[in-house]
Amino acid sequence: MRDLSAHPELLSINSATVRERWNLPQLIEGCARHGIRAISPWRDKVAECGLATAAKLIRTHGLQLSGYCRGGLFPAADAAGRARAIEENRRAVDEAATLGAPCLILVAGGLPEGSKDIADARAQVHDGMAALLEHARKANVMLAIEPLHPMYAADRACVNTLAQANALCRALGPGIGVAVDVYHLWWDPELEASIAEAGRLGLILAFHVCDWLVPTTDLLLDRGMMGDGVIDIRKIRGWVEAAGYGGLVEAEIFSARNWWQRDPDEVLRICRERYISVC
Amino acid sequence: MRDLSAHPELLSINSATVRERWNLPQLIEGCARHGIRAISPWRDKVAECGLATAAKLIRTHGLQLSGYCRGGLFPAADAAGRARAIEENRRAVDEAATLGAPCLILVAGGLPEGSKDIADARAQVHDGMAALLEHARKANVMLAIEPLHPMYAADRACVNTLAQANALCRALGPGIGVAVDVYHLWWDPELEASIAEAGRLGLILAFHVCDWLVPTTDLLLDRGMMGDGVIDIRKIRGWVEAAGYGGLVEAEIFSARNWWQRDPDEVLRICRERYISVC
Repeated sequence: MRDLSAHPELLSINSATVRERWNLPQLIEGCARHGIRAISPWRDKVAECGLATAAKLIRTHGLQLSGYCRGGLFPAADAAGRARAIEENRRAVDEAATLGAPCLILVAGGLPEGSKDIADARAQVHDGMAALLEHARKANVMLAIEPLHPMYAADRACVNTLAQANALCRALGPGIGVAVDVYHLWWDPELEASIAEAGRLGLILAFHVCDWLVPTTDLLLDRGMMGDGVIDIRKIRGWVEAAGYGGLVEAEIFSARNWWQRDPDEVLRICRERYISVC
Repeated sequence: MRDLSAHPELLSINSATVRERWNLPQLIEGCARHGIRAISPWRDKVAECGLATAAKLIRTHGLQLSGYCRGGLFPAADAAGRARAIEENRRAVDEAATLGAPCLILVAGGLPEGSKDIADARAQVHDGMAALLEHARKANVMLAIEPLHPMYAADRACVNTLAQANALCRALGPGIGVAVDVYHLWWDPELEASIAEAGRLGLILAFHVCDWLVPTTDLLLDRGMMGDGVIDIRKIRGWVEAAGYGGLVEAEIFSARNWWQRDPDEVLRICRERYISVC
């Protein structure tokens, strides 16, 4: 297992972690101030400053990217909606290629409006990813399926376990892998085995960290700073690295009531500290 | 698959569904008014009216019980805490026997204070159930493990899938089975297979219904009336019945902002309607 204190360059900051108070140039400058060498930008932040400007800023600062957030959201109530989703995903792949991102994070999408058929939604997710894959291969952008916590199954992502994401990758072939986010997966009794399987198949493209707070007061926007919750992040990182992962450790914290309210410089400073002491 | 419109006697009302406005005698009288023939009482409601009175009222009205809520909560920070939990569970078993309940619902419990070791909590759950089992067998009360949604893994129940509950039952032997609650399990891509396995092993002791609302505004107290959310309850009931379950259909709705505020007679009337039209 890697000693992160000897590898500060492996920390990546997801733009969502400081999304309320910093745009992308501010994040990039902030990372430079804090000696943070990698980021993962969201599409809205890139659009806000312009794709070309974003790409140039990232190159100029010599920043690594741990991923690009995000594509996916494949299921829709009709064929036209599904086609629009695939078109939108192709644009996201192209942006990821322009930015030099190694992978596009895919959040599956939930049930189409009015549907209770989660098996059908899951089939739509498979088909959407299959339709996107050739474009992504040509662009040299890996697709990274991020299984989301089961509490998002209805409205955000009907891919809810790593085993399920692994199975999708096996079905879809080269060019697609998984993003392991401790927040979404920590509870899974099969997690260690699923990480090992993902490793054997060479699927692990990203590793995301934050923490599960007790109590959690909001389903979406109450995630914790690493160390403030109950997830044994280091144990899970150990599993991921034993499975062969040697990439970045990305801090992605959705926290409307706490971290989004704070000075982003403080947030980055604490992310760096916790990256060493907790992750 | 059973035609529920021909079997109104299979509907059971969990006392939590009307907990804010009715005590146990009121629930029992309410069920009589609405032609509902079964209930599942919580321990606090039984304690409030007295165990002997509760048992007598249930007998006098010829009510069926679909279960008794609830035991469990086994993990604790020290041996004394774990021993207290087992003692408390023995009392719950004895109460279930006095009431004539076929099973005691077990909610596993979450992480002990300060712990991040969910594997250890799960081992404690196994050991607690093993320690309780002999007492339950002697009392002729089945133990029913209710896997809770993964969003409760930290603070309520570290048994989060039916596969995990099935495995516990296989390890523990006769006298223990599972409660299938659609709210907790609907998202699971392995649910159909796990229900079939539970059926093969003869483990299914209870079937609970409510619905998953979109959006869900509270992790604990924002469950929906059957039909108001996205769960395909009838499909899951079909799986449970195909697996051999022939018992009651229990409506258990934690809803602080909606159903708990309404006239309980209205709640029971709508439960009856939805039991026919949706379940």
